[in-house]
Amino acid sequence: MGHLGFAILVCAMTSLTPATSALAAPSPVIALFTDYGWEDPYVAQLKGVILSTNPNVRIMDLTHVVQPFHVTEASYLLDQSTAEFPAGTIVVAVVDPQVGTERDAILVETKQGKYFVGPDNGLFTHVIDNEGFSRAWKLDKPEYFRPGPLSHTFHGRDIFAPVAAHLAAGIPPDKFGTPIKTLELLPVKEPTFTNGTVSVEVLHVDRFGNIILNLGKDSEVAGKLKEGNLVKVSVGKQNISGPLVKTYANVEKGRIVLLYGGDNLLEIAMNQGSAAKELKVEPGAVIFLKP
Amino acid sequence: MGHLGFAILVCAMTSLTPATSALAAPSPVIALFTDYGWEDPYVAQLKGVILSTNPNVRIMDLTHVVQPFHVTEASYLLDQSTAEFPAGTIVVAVVDPQVGTERDAILVETKQGKYFVGPDNGLFTHVIDNEGFSRAWKLDKPEYFRPGPLSHTFHGRDIFAPVAAHLAAGIPPDKFGTPIKTLELLPVKEPTFTNGTVSVEVLHVDRFGNIILNLGKDSEVAGKLKEGNLVKVSVGKQNISGPLVKTYANVEKGRIVLLYGGDNLLEIAMNQGSAAKELKVEPGAVIFLKP
Amino acid sequence: MGHLGFAILVCAMTSLTPATSALAAPSPVIALFTDYGWEDPYVAQLKGVILSTNPNVRIMDLTHVVQPFHVTEASYLLDQSTAEFPAGTIVVAVVDPQVGTERDAILVETKQGKYFVGPDNGLFTHVIDNEGFSRAWKLDKPEYFRPGPLSHTFHGRDIFAPVAAHLAAGIPPDKFGTPIKTLELLPVKEPTFTNGTVSVEVLHVDRFGNIILNLGKDSEVAGKLKEGNLVKVSVGKQNISGPLVKTYANVEKGRIVLLYGGDNLLEIAMNQGSAAKELKVEPGAVIFLKP
Repeated sequence: MGHLGFAILVCAMTSLTPATSALAAPSPVIALFTDYGWEDPYVAQLKGVILSTNPNVRIMDLTHVVQPFHVTEASYLLDQSTAEFPAGTIVVAVVDPQVGTERDAILVETKQGKYFVGPDNGLFTHVIDNEGFSRAWKLDKPEYFRPGPLSHTFHGRDIFAPVAAHLAAGIPPDKFGTPIKTLELLPVKEPTFTNGTVSVEVLHVDRFGNIILNLGKDSEVAGKLKEGNLVKVSVGKQNISGPLVKTYANVEKGRIVLLYGGDNLLEIAMNQGSAAKELKVEPGAVIFLKP
Repeated sequence: MGHLGFAILVCAMTSLTPATSALAAPSPVIALFTDYGWEDPYVAQLKGVILSTNPNVRIMDLTHVVQPFHVTEASYLLDQSTAEFPAGTIVVAVVDPQVGTERDAILVETKQGKYFVGPDNGLFTHVIDNEGFSRAWKLDKPEYFRPGPLSHTFHGRDIFAPVAAHLAAGIPPDKFGTPIKTLELLPVKEPTFTNGTVSVEVLHVDRFGNIILNLGKDSEVAGKLKEGNLVKVSVGKQNISGPLVKTYANVEKGRIVLLYGGDNLLEIAMNQGSAAKELKVEPGAVIFLKP
Repeated sequence: MGHLGFAILVCAMTSLTPATSALAAPSPVIALFTDYGWEDPYVAQLKGVILSTNPNVRIMDLTHVVQPFHVTEASYLLDQSTAEFPAGTIVVAVVDPQVGTERDAILVETKQGKYFVGPDNGLFTHVIDNEGFSRAWKLDKPEYFRPGPLSHTFHGRDIFAPVAAHLAAGIPPDKFGTPIKTLELLPVKEPTFTNGTVSVEVLHVDRFGNIILNLGKDSEVAGKLKEGNLVKVSVGKQNISGPLVKTYANVEKGRIVLLYGGDNLLEIAMNQGSAAKELKVEPGAVIFLKP
């Protein structure tokens, strides 16, 4: 009895104090990245399937408003959205214009120990470019799919979500399908420097209208642009110029500036305004920068 | 001391391995389905009230951008959004144009063992049509409401959220109010087939512009339309035609197609485009289909 | 061995029954309130940093679509969004047009025992107006920041999120920085009554187009307006009138009404329509009301 009493006390204590509660394993995390939007029942259906398969998980919304059909931009955003998550995180990623055709459903284990479930259509290009992958599988074991007939249009609900939930329950990843050695990868464009001009591509336009470019702070080409100097920006027939600065607030309101953002990529921004509206650019556009 | 050591070890072990952590009951789930939008503090207030009432729950966002005032469409979306969730799930559902008038606040237990809290205005029509209900109560026990004066405009915060949180804490459902035998139900329209024409109604237009119709794949009327054949679509004065196919990607970009979606309902879609914009339809519109 | 068996049984029991599982401390809550939007990877990065720093927390989305740059409106919304949360809640709040300049990063403990992490730019004005603060710190201990170089544009990820996660792990708040006695506060405008006219300011326009005003139900000025009476509303050159009622549904569709909302503040609303569109007002606008 005395021992029993002790045991109860100990269990309660381990959970009641924040410091020691770290002993208890937190429930696994499934992070959702989709183009489903919030207007429809699709996000809710993913969550329902996950919880019905494995009631023990924590579900995180990364985003559900990726531009549909733009797999290249989505690939960049997926990499950025998952980069900070710890090993063991399971990501369900769905931007899937070819759903229901012969493109494969896959599970990818990165070298950092994260898991990605989704379509094999290039969506994982930037993640793999950054993290590498150690193993990958084509998902061809229907016993881990949602029970019932497989929909032709909703593999998120029928394949990706249930596989993620089973994986979170401790099923080893190699149970879900056939190992594959290569994945569908999109071309990742590199910035170039020729004839005194830096040529870059728009990866993404953010909510603030900042234009994110494929030019890393530590790249060789980045060395051509010096902080404090003016840079000439050419897009289509437009020409504008702005300084390369450290932070948005360094210049007056409405002025175009260039700066390295939180992801160390060069951005064209307008202090308290939208650079993308001013320059009328979209993801995929090519921009020329003259130091 | 030795026993104490053992006990700590055991507690830690039961939580550290995924296989055995299934022993621990996962915390109850409260799923939120509202028309509150994300621009306002209302969603946050629901969550705050729930956590203040019962700190032990997991809160899931199903959606907060249902069209306000459109109870019929919301009823369809609610059913779709909750269909995949397991028994025991508690849903707070708020699309409530008559808040503060004499419409009742209710708790419904479906035959599948889910709980729905919200207004008695027909919002639960499609859920009950699909799952049936075993018991229901009019919420008239203010001791389970949010403390303080009852707002005339915000029953989500003052009644629905706290009742859901108390229910999640283990209070039996029959404590919250007076049993009722009938609920407010909206007319659910069935598709018809007369003079060689299928007449259907638009339930919902999704983010991709797909037009979801009230025609189930296994219904008798559905038998009139054959896969692979062209279907003539008439809405108002517009006439267009497209094939009944298996998946979006089966036809060229921009072509109208008909197909059964993930919910087994017929959809009019445009491959990589918006069928709803093309046909200018909204929920509630009547569409005629000629095989 | 017998004692070991007992201990296992006890641990399992404490988790399996809802009544006793209340013994286990629920994991700490970090609530996110930002202007990051869902279109970008910033929300996901906050979540990733939090989980990487402290895998044991529950993360709640309050909102991510606060209007960027409008710190006054954001301050009102932040107070409303967090008011219902229990003591111990940790809020990461980011509306931060001066990020990267000399404005401080701070941690505030309110008298109600909630914690707020964010920029010292007035964002916490309404919270402090309502709850008071007991202690506050300037965050100047980089050992609690995200490892790696500090970004000039993304303190949410690099400072606020990791500090919140460490705080949730049980690090005492005074470890994170230097105590401060005063915070940046915005002017909070009070309603006035002169020459028979009530002068109020627009705090926020909600999703339904309701215009939320800085006039509390229990204020002295509110006594000038009587329920059931018509009120003349003047904004710019527009004049319109509507009754002060109890609930939206009390008048016909499309009619302007005034009523006290869920937060006890006066609202101008249009039954099943947008009062803000009708009156063309934005946050900060001044409105005159004549009883």
